[in-house]
Amino acid sequence: MYDLIIIGMGPGGYEATLTALRKGLNIAIVEKSKVGGNCLNRACIPTKYFWTGAHQIEKLKILKEYGINLEGYSIDYTKAWEGKEKAISFLRKSLNMLLKTKKVPVYKGTGKIIGRNQVEITKEDGSKEIIDGKYILIATGSVPASVGNIIPDGEYIITTEDFLEKLKELPEEILIVGGGVAGCEIGYIMASYGSNVHIVELMNRLLPMPDIPEEVSRYLLRKFKKLKINTYFNTTLQEHKVENGKIIVKLSDGTELKVDKILLSIGRKPNSDIDTIGIDKDEKGFIKVNSRMQTNFENIYACGDVVNSPMLAYIASYEAKVAIENITGKDEEVIYKNIPYVLFSGYEIATIGLTPEQAKEKGIEIISGYYPYTYNEKAVDEHESEGFVRLVFENDSKKLLGGTIVGTGASELIHILELALNEEFTAEELHNFIYFHPSLSEILAYATYDIVVGKLF
Amino acid sequence: MYDLIIIGMGPGGYEATLTALRKGLNIAIVEKSKVGGNCLNRACIPTKYFWTGAHQIEKLKILKEYGINLEGYSIDYTKAWEGKEKAISFLRKSLNMLLKTKKVPVYKGTGKIIGRNQVEITKEDGSKEIIDGKYILIATGSVPASVGNIIPDGEYIITTEDFLEKLKELPEEILIVGGGVAGCEIGYIMASYGSNVHIVELMNRLLPMPDIPEEVSRYLLRKFKKLKINTYFNTTLQEHKVENGKIIVKLSDGTELKVDKILLSIGRKPNSDIDTIGIDKDEKGFIKVNSRMQTNFENIYACGDVVNSPMLAYIASYEAKVAIENITGKDEEVIYKNIPYVLFSGYEIATIGLTPEQAKEKGIEIISGYYPYTYNEKAVDEHESEGFVRLVFENDSKKLLGGTIVGTGASELIHILELALNEEFTAEELHNFIYFHPSLSEILAYATYDIVVGKLF
Repeated sequence: MYDLIIIGMGPGGYEATLTALRKGLNIAIVEKSKVGGNCLNRACIPTKYFWTGAHQIEKLKILKEYGINLEGYSIDYTKAWEGKEKAISFLRKSLNMLLKTKKVPVYKGTGKIIGRNQVEITKEDGSKEIIDGKYILIATGSVPASVGNIIPDGEYIITTEDFLEKLKELPEEILIVGGGVAGCEIGYIMASYGSNVHIVELMNRLLPMPDIPEEVSRYLLRKFKKLKINTYFNTTLQEHKVENGKIIVKLSDGTELKVDKILLSIGRKPNSDIDTIGIDKDEKGFIKVNSRMQTNFENIYACGDVVNSPMLAYIASYEAKVAIENITGKDEEVIYKNIPYVLFSGYEIATIGLTPEQAKEKGIEIISGYYPYTYNEKAVDEHESEGFVRLVFENDSKKLLGGTIVGTGASELIHILELALNEEFTAEELHNFIYFHPSLSEILAYATYDIVVGKLF
Repeated sequence: MYDLIIIGMGPGGYEATLTALRKGLNIAIVEKSKVGGNCLNRACIPTKYFWTGAHQIEKLKILKEYGINLEGYSIDYTKAWEGKEKAISFLRKSLNMLLKTKKVPVYKGTGKIIGRNQVEITKEDGSKEIIDGKYILIATGSVPASVGNIIPDGEYIITTEDFLEKLKELPEEILIVGGGVAGCEIGYIMASYGSNVHIVELMNRLLPMPDIPEEVSRYLLRKFKKLKINTYFNTTLQEHKVENGKIIVKLSDGTELKVDKILLSIGRKPNSDIDTIGIDKDEKGFIKVNSRMQTNFENIYACGDVVNSPMLAYIASYEAKVAIENITGKDEEVIYKNIPYVLFSGYEIATIGLTPEQAKEKGIEIISGYYPYTYNEKAVDEHESEGFVRLVFENDSKKLLGGTIVGTGASELIHILELALNEEFTAEELHNFIYFHPSLSEILAYATYDIVVGKLF
């Protein structure tokens, strides 16, 4: 009997593995596909790879400002796809190497919990094997959701996973259904690599989530317009049919388009059809856990997208760590506080804490600080001067409530705000902190100047 | 009479201006050269500009991994120089525009304090003007130091300032005297743009300062070797003479070289010949100030390179803020604690707090955490996987004492360590912090894994 069986080797399962091995547990892994899960193989990591390429394409035009004269260039998406495969397979290999070195058995197949200590693995060839574990961690993640009659077929109608993992040739014309995070990330990549992109969004803006300030949606939309990405708001896909290898689509606003692919990016659903023993799930199919990440079976834990918490790779990792601590005798609870939200689209976009809109809704009187990247010396040096920082403070105490960073470095700088939120910083503390010059981080000092020292104008 | 006369418009003078204007002071500025001082015109900002270019040159070879196929390219340093001028003049203009809009008089000339409230300005044409101020802030900075008979002439023997401000043509062959920060920064730039670079250093390593761990010097040296930068340690420049437009140099180890330029980068000295009224200076010429940045005249303050504190632009800014607070009635003291040191050479290099060597010298028992960039997913996505993080903790308490980051993003990530030091974080707090995935910042969690959770091997 293993000490612990981990089902699913995505960011939750991987972190659980690292932590469990360090704590000396005798573990087994069940994974039906590639190690690394969606994050590594068909979500976060390929997205950032392609984003790096897309951003480099944008930056080709400023190379001459550094005395780099290009004689000419061409863009070949398939080569980018191959480069992505190389990067990911390097990471996957290092993961497999670790498992091999530590002699961790990896059962290839789909796991099902058939007893409180029993996992049945169905392999690709249909054969079955049962293994026993004192503890079980369910880290099976999620799959792309679909809607109505828009059913992914892997050819005409594809999911974000199909795109990131399999699509070697860029479609000339594509309709993206859903202008949320994945839609905006992939839309930017495709447009940069040369596709003609249409994004249809049910709501009235890009990134229509409460954690994203409206200011960000407007800023990104301007960039999308420059990139000639077509957007359709308050609109749905009404009809689609395949004709001569193209898809004829009709949107609810009457627009008719002829596209090569439809990319569905309307969210994800938990991969929770995992047991025959009555593990509790909620009405949306998420596995129910307590704050220790424990299911209704005290030796069975769950973490990541399969439970009802923010569907983020690093939340899965965090939950996995807490689960392992509890399995190994500690008593720890997850606390979802000050979680950074980050995406890579026309800009790096990062946000944490309350948006101005959320503060208003809660009836909190706020004062906000703003500074554009325009005058930041490092941003100017790098020709990266698009972007801004918006900080939200409680008006009386001047305590930091949240902040948004749009622009280069946002995905790293957000951690400074996270620490400042954790430590309940005031505007003054954020302003008087010593920032290296020239750094992008300095923008945080400039965004608080008016509030702390007084207005310039 | 002005409320405040600021002599010198570098990072100290600039920050003083911004703060004083916000506080409603009636100020005047005395500046003998361009606004922005050395930092903007001939140090930090041009260095980072050229560094961006040099780094882009390195990255040209990986563009194909993103499907960007270059047909060919050429490198033209003069165009980079012109690009640098454009960026800097944009920043300078925005500064001048601010001064104009706020109707701040800028006296062009060299200021001398001839009375406790009087500054005499000697203009370029030799004419003089005297202005009066209730308070005076000396922010005159520093100038490159020279040594022995190696006297900069602006043609054969140049300073770092000559290089960054004036040198439009790259020399084919250059000898850099001094392998400290400026020598390593400029050496990297020149080598990347095509010069054959020699660095001669009196000590036994690159960056031979106590704040830089030896590990960093070794790591950078390997990169310099790859870039074919020639280094000579424990060595001095013994002889040099000009013959047919070339300089024949002889080093103390017997090496003879024929170079086009000698670049002197052996440090800086304060620009403190500023008064006739007896302002106290130390034996090195630094203006003496108390912790409120006040000189021996209670209405005369000084900040930046002209006082004996770390010669860093952002320390000048910090001191300037403190000075203005004191001038406007507060009672604030400067505290030099947890100052980040950052440089841009073959890598971004940032360090803060105690190095392993410094901790050992102090007799502190340490435990150290290490993680390479190699397996960081974002670094792999960006083809930026050279680099490492080294963290130093007190062995018993596991409290963070210091850290070094070498690699992309180091100049921003160092602020996370600065906050962690300020808040007296333990390894556990640094490990359990929620890092966005995939981010470079996550390396901090991985560098603490062994210490907090247990070893993997």
